[in-house]
Amino acid sequence: MVTLVDIREAESRIRGKIIRTPLVYSPTFSSMSGAEVYLKLESMQKAGSFKVRGATNRILSSRDAIGPAGVIAASAGNHAQGVAVAAGLAGVPAAIVMPEWTSLSKQEASRGYGARVILAGTSLEESIVRAKELAGTEGMMFIHPYDDPAVVAGQGTIGLEILADLPDVDRVLVPVGGGGLIAGIALAVRGLRRSARVTGVQASACPSAIASRERGGPVAVDAESTIADGIRVKRTGDLTFPLIRDLVDQVVAVEEQAILDAVLLLLERKKVLAEGAGAVPLAALLSGAVAVTPGEKVVLVISGGNVDTFLLERILKRGLFDSGRIARIAVLIKEDSRSLPALLEVVSREGGVIGAVDQDRDDPGVPLDRMRVRIEVETRGPDHRDRILSALQRAGYRPL
Amino acid sequence: MVTLVDIREAESRIRGKIIRTPLVYSPTFSSMSGAEVYLKLESMQKAGSFKVRGATNRILSSRDAIGPAGVIAASAGNHAQGVAVAAGLAGVPAAIVMPEWTSLSKQEASRGYGARVILAGTSLEESIVRAKELAGTEGMMFIHPYDDPAVVAGQGTIGLEILADLPDVDRVLVPVGGGGLIAGIALAVRGLRRSARVTGVQASACPSAIASRERGGPVAVDAESTIADGIRVKRTGDLTFPLIRDLVDQVVAVEEQAILDAVLLLLERKKVLAEGAGAVPLAALLSGAVAVTPGEKVVLVISGGNVDTFLLERILKRGLFDSGRIARIAVLIKEDSRSLPALLEVVSREGGVIGAVDQDRDDPGVPLDRMRVRIEVETRGPDHRDRILSALQRAGYRPL
Repeated sequence: MVTLVDIREAESRIRGKIIRTPLVYSPTFSSMSGAEVYLKLESMQKAGSFKVRGATNRILSSRDAIGPAGVIAASAGNHAQGVAVAAGLAGVPAAIVMPEWTSLSKQEASRGYGARVILAGTSLEESIVRAKELAGTEGMMFIHPYDDPAVVAGQGTIGLEILADLPDVDRVLVPVGGGGLIAGIALAVRGLRRSARVTGVQASACPSAIASRERGGPVAVDAESTIADGIRVKRTGDLTFPLIRDLVDQVVAVEEQAILDAVLLLLERKKVLAEGAGAVPLAALLSGAVAVTPGEKVVLVISGGNVDTFLLERILKRGLFDSGRIARIAVLIKEDSRSLPALLEVVSREGGVIGAVDQDRDDPGVPLDRMRVRIEVETRGPDHRDRILSALQRAGYRPL
Repeated sequence: MVTLVDIREAESRIRGKIIRTPLVYSPTFSSMSGAEVYLKLESMQKAGSFKVRGATNRILSSRDAIGPAGVIAASAGNHAQGVAVAAGLAGVPAAIVMPEWTSLSKQEASRGYGARVILAGTSLEESIVRAKELAGTEGMMFIHPYDDPAVVAGQGTIGLEILADLPDVDRVLVPVGGGGLIAGIALAVRGLRRSARVTGVQASACPSAIASRERGGPVAVDAESTIADGIRVKRTGDLTFPLIRDLVDQVVAVEEQAILDAVLLLLERKKVLAEGAGAVPLAALLSGAVAVTPGEKVVLVISGGNVDTFLLERILKRGLFDSGRIARIAVLIKEDSRSLPALLEVVSREGGVIGAVDQDRDDPGVPLDRMRVRIEVETRGPDHRDRILSALQRAGYRPL
């Protein structure tokens, strides 16, 4: 059982240890959705996600039960870093069991916060089993990522902060993986303001809470790969499920493209870096998965910002393609000395910035006296791309 | 003359119109610098920079003087968008004169906020001349980007917010272009807390305020290209210079690499997108350009976040190279069927993710029975890159 009292106690326990994250108004997302939209930026929390709240509350509320061997958790993501930071704040040792395939950069992130990293298991489930074994044999306290009352109470402090900053909030949109975040927030928000709605958002690739609500109890779903890997949890928690069932008005699903668009919009319009899981509330708002009434005060919980730079670079590149700001144009031209410069001249005259140029003479689809040229062009958007294509057509080219 | 009273009046005038931006603690930058570091996130301001504060104060404090033709400004950057948004908030028309070479995306940004865009002039200076002419002939009020008391007072509201959130602040680091931002902040911060220091930061590429302080009056400097284009202003303002001279303890310069590193660190560690000009305070703190005492409470004013996605994508890619997470490896191998797969096998066995592979047989430097292969490899960092290079050497390759 977790109650509002537990969340209030958690708040005083972790105060000054965690960052009281800002709630920031977004004029852009407000005008895009018709609602009055605010972002709760847990992306700026210590270790880059909300996870440190629950872990800190768990550790500080059971100091006497923690022996010299400290605490242990299993995770390849935000929970690992959250536990590592929380243990460091409390001055207790921490060990994190990670699946063997965990990237070195994720291992380093937890080591950087002072935790011992143990590679064990070919899946997260196996790592969890191993962590629980080690907890028993080495006398460490196991910290579950969501199915733990002190963890839920810790995450719930986000709800108290939202209400303190925006007392007349109408709706809070929250990412849902195992359910610890939304269970805590729903307890806090609905406990203090019964009329407010708390809505869950999942990736369509892993709709575990949606399936559980339909079934009436936690049920495991197949999970596909998703950019929102932070909420790719196949089964809602046993502790969190009844809270979600009773306090959350609905749980909706969003598609990969909507999540990708939301990550880009947060960065380009609000200068906020969110990970895929952290961007699902915006995806739900803008894709219409959640219907809002005009002027409704909506808070989007941006739960974390831990995006690998490689992935981010690819997301940006993809965004430039999707928005027409990079165009790939292919045409057949004559194989002679003038044809290529003449083609490039047309693109250049229209203000397109030519990136890569690539010629192919050998493809069986190309006539013997021709070559196929592929050009990557930076444009100022779809209109500009279309103007470049029109100019090519007027000049006698037939873009493929 | 601008005084603390003007800034207080500006604050009540623009309240509710602009975003009261968050001040967020950074554990990472604190431990990197030894100071207690907070970020004032004007990157999350309306239109993505602090500029809307001064413009809104200018417009609202002279409503009676603004005719039906509205206001006019000249800018290719944040001031354009700031004036456009401020005019929209006040319900007056706005025209922005932009140099002819201004990119369509920057034009669109101002049009998107409801302003009329006029392309005139081959330099910003010429655009300013044209804007002042139009102000006279068409009866529009000209809004200067910094050398205007109401603009300085508007930017000064940032100082009041910093003191409200962190009353015992010791030092505020502020980007300096024309000087409007730092003049306003210095008036507010030093007016309320004399012991606090306000320090200016410029790009080494355009040290106009530094030169002006040495000279004892505003002086024009040559400006080189810089990633901090938002503070590439060749001459400090006549109004702002005396305020900077009297209230700012020092103005320091930072190099391009330090600015680039700061943009990347803000994104990777704090999930904050800052433009180059907005990142110079962090660059100054971490490069040692400003010496801080341990535990000193330092606020970095992150003045804006308007980075074009193309540029950001390149910054990320550069960061991946600089940090060794993308390595370019070149080796000579025999020209036979086995050599290339054998080479790639070594890289792959060490866990390097092979991106592009590129062969060259024709370069005069390559022996006739060899070819040069260039591989782009994703690594987990410098250590991993070095392990891959060692493995290649053990296998008999000589990376070039």
